[in-house]
Amino acid sequence: MKINGIHYRSVWLASDGYTVEIFDQTKLPFEVQTIQLRTMQDAATAIKEMWVRGAPLIGAVAAYGMALAMHQESSDESLQQAYNVLVKTRPTAINLKWALERTYRVLENLEHSQRETTAYRIANEIANEDVEFCHKIGEHGLKIIQSIAETKSTGETVNILTHCNAGWLATVDWGTALAPIYMAHDVGIKVHVWVDETRPRNQGGLTAFELGSHGVPHTLIADNAGGHLMQHGKVDLCIVGTDRTTARGDVCNKIGTYLKALAAKANQVPFYVALPSPTLDLTVWDGVKEIPIELRSGEEQSHVYGITPEGLRSWVNTAPHGTSCENYAFDVTPAELITGLITERGICDASAEGLRALFPDLCG
Amino acid sequence: MKINGIHYRSVWLASDGYTVEIFDQTKLPFEVQTIQLRTMQDAATAIKEMWVRGAPLIGAVAAYGMALAMHQESSDESLQQAYNVLVKTRPTAINLKWALERTYRVLENLEHSQRETTAYRIANEIANEDVEFCHKIGEHGLKIIQSIAETKSTGETVNILTHCNAGWLATVDWGTALAPIYMAHDVGIKVHVWVDETRPRNQGGLTAFELGSHGVPHTLIADNAGGHLMQHGKVDLCIVGTDRTTARGDVCNKIGTYLKALAAKANQVPFYVALPSPTLDLTVWDGVKEIPIELRSGEEQSHVYGITPEGLRSWVNTAPHGTSCENYAFDVTPAELITGLITERGICDASAEGLRALFPDLCG
Repeated sequence: MKINGIHYRSVWLASDGYTVEIFDQTKLPFEVQTIQLRTMQDAATAIKEMWVRGAPLIGAVAAYGMALAMHQESSDESLQQAYNVLVKTRPTAINLKWALERTYRVLENLEHSQRETTAYRIANEIANEDVEFCHKIGEHGLKIIQSIAETKSTGETVNILTHCNAGWLATVDWGTALAPIYMAHDVGIKVHVWVDETRPRNQGGLTAFELGSHGVPHTLIADNAGGHLMQHGKVDLCIVGTDRTTARGDVCNKIGTYLKALAAKANQVPFYVALPSPTLDLTVWDGVKEIPIELRSGEEQSHVYGITPEGLRSWVNTAPHGTSCENYAFDVTPAELITGLITERGICDASAEGLRALFPDLCG
Repeated sequence: MKINGIHYRSVWLASDGYTVEIFDQTKLPFEVQTIQLRTMQDAATAIKEMWVRGAPLIGAVAAYGMALAMHQESSDESLQQAYNVLVKTRPTAINLKWALERTYRVLENLEHSQRETTAYRIANEIANEDVEFCHKIGEHGLKIIQSIAETKSTGETVNILTHCNAGWLATVDWGTALAPIYMAHDVGIKVHVWVDETRPRNQGGLTAFELGSHGVPHTLIADNAGGHLMQHGKVDLCIVGTDRTTARGDVCNKIGTYLKALAAKANQVPFYVALPSPTLDLTVWDGVKEIPIELRSGEEQSHVYGITPEGLRSWVNTAPHGTSCENYAFDVTPAELITGLITERGICDASAEGLRALFPDLCG
């Protein structure tokens, strides 16, 4: 999508053909700064330190990390080590493991001399597939927004609430939850997005940045506000992304998603989750019981980035000095709270049957 | 309660006998700074600018504002003007109106020469009553915590989640939601408090400051985290305060309270609301439909106070430059989500019958 009229992806190859470039998303939305990843370790750091985030983008950068490893050294040890290091960078996004396994399985049977070229080809494939999947998610989700728009008077706005950032910055392009919104806006439907701030890391700022850059009307709100808005009929639809989706349709997404799903259910607001199939983890059934939740540094809770009145980016402590903080990064929304899953193959119920109908090849 | 071992109330009279002193709560939890209120207008500013906040404390400061007005000028015009100015400072806390009416009704029938002394007497009464009410709320709420502690193995902690600040800084002393927690801690029950950050104004920092000053174990969390904690059995009990309680037991409290009540209900976690009877507004039945919700400046959402790495207090913009923000200050939690109301007269169901049984004199 565009920043200042120029089209970008969130990960791309530099002109030298091997260096991987990304935006430092920890600097966004305040500064648009590009980072060069030249080694596998650079890619691992980029994922771990959240220079890149969002399950699909993590998968793509991990695949490029394998390619960088093969550029450095194409031995079996290097391949194994790259897998081992990269797979541990983040515990929740299943796309990470999916991308690494897809790459590893091909490379392990290749002659060393072919590994680098093949690894870059697979990483490019994963990136391009993600763009294609997100575009299709956009087309399917657009129908939901269109059908809500049709129930409204002409010119009345469709209000959509989203949590975290499941936009193009979280994928390679388009986004998952935001893809239908971009498409609705582009075809002339009046949409307005309630953007959850998404504490503690304020990914709502990324969503506001994306929507603002594309010209989509939006309002940033506290994570606390969504229940009130739904009680008062100010939300027509919720769409969120997911980092991992279980065989029965539970979704593990950014902490706080569950609270919005509860409020949507209580107020009869449709609650959709947008996902490309690589976020499916069919080895897991009960998301609440089975998915380990990443516990990140408490400092991410106590401290926040912002711009001082002097125009400087600063990392300020908002908590009383020395306060103990806990920082769970994700929560699980049980399938029964979800109206439907928007995938690249269409929309289905959040259930084993729903997923099996769309993905018989994966659900076996 | 105590700061550095010294006992304070949140509002008190200076040694000159008429100046009213408060803490500037917008500077807390970073700086403990006292402000002198010398005029009715000072008191109005203190409420409007949230130097003081919390429904019971707002009521007490408003009463002192009437006294300051009478100190300045005891005419009928001055009395009427003080009421008119003070009643408009905040729209939600019903204690404000209650305290002003209680004072006004007495003063209007008095000779001008008696008004100042009487106004100070009433303000002192309101403040002392609040302390007494909160102390009783603490005693009644303590029984709930004790009964949960009894179901646990010896030495196992009772985990309590609270939202916003309903501690001694929100009242005159003790607090409402925090009073039972202070008492449980003081009688030796092992308690631990999950403190919601409470965006956008981060009143969780005040709660962490209070609890830390008193030595009560606590952990600051994102408002998004409570649902996950309840799903995983890490919350035994929620206790929150309220700014306004309707005749059928709906409560209007800090934005986000409703989301926690939904999660508590979904996970069978008891959800109690602590309130002194002056927060009852028996003229309102359906809180969602009838209570106007204060919409505050969007800048409170985009900006936050914190301490820079250089140790300076700074007001930083955490949102992309120019982002539109909406800032609803309260939401309404319907009675059916509330396990019980903890009042100065005991605990009752959140229902018209429950309230009538405890307050037959008020419910008429």
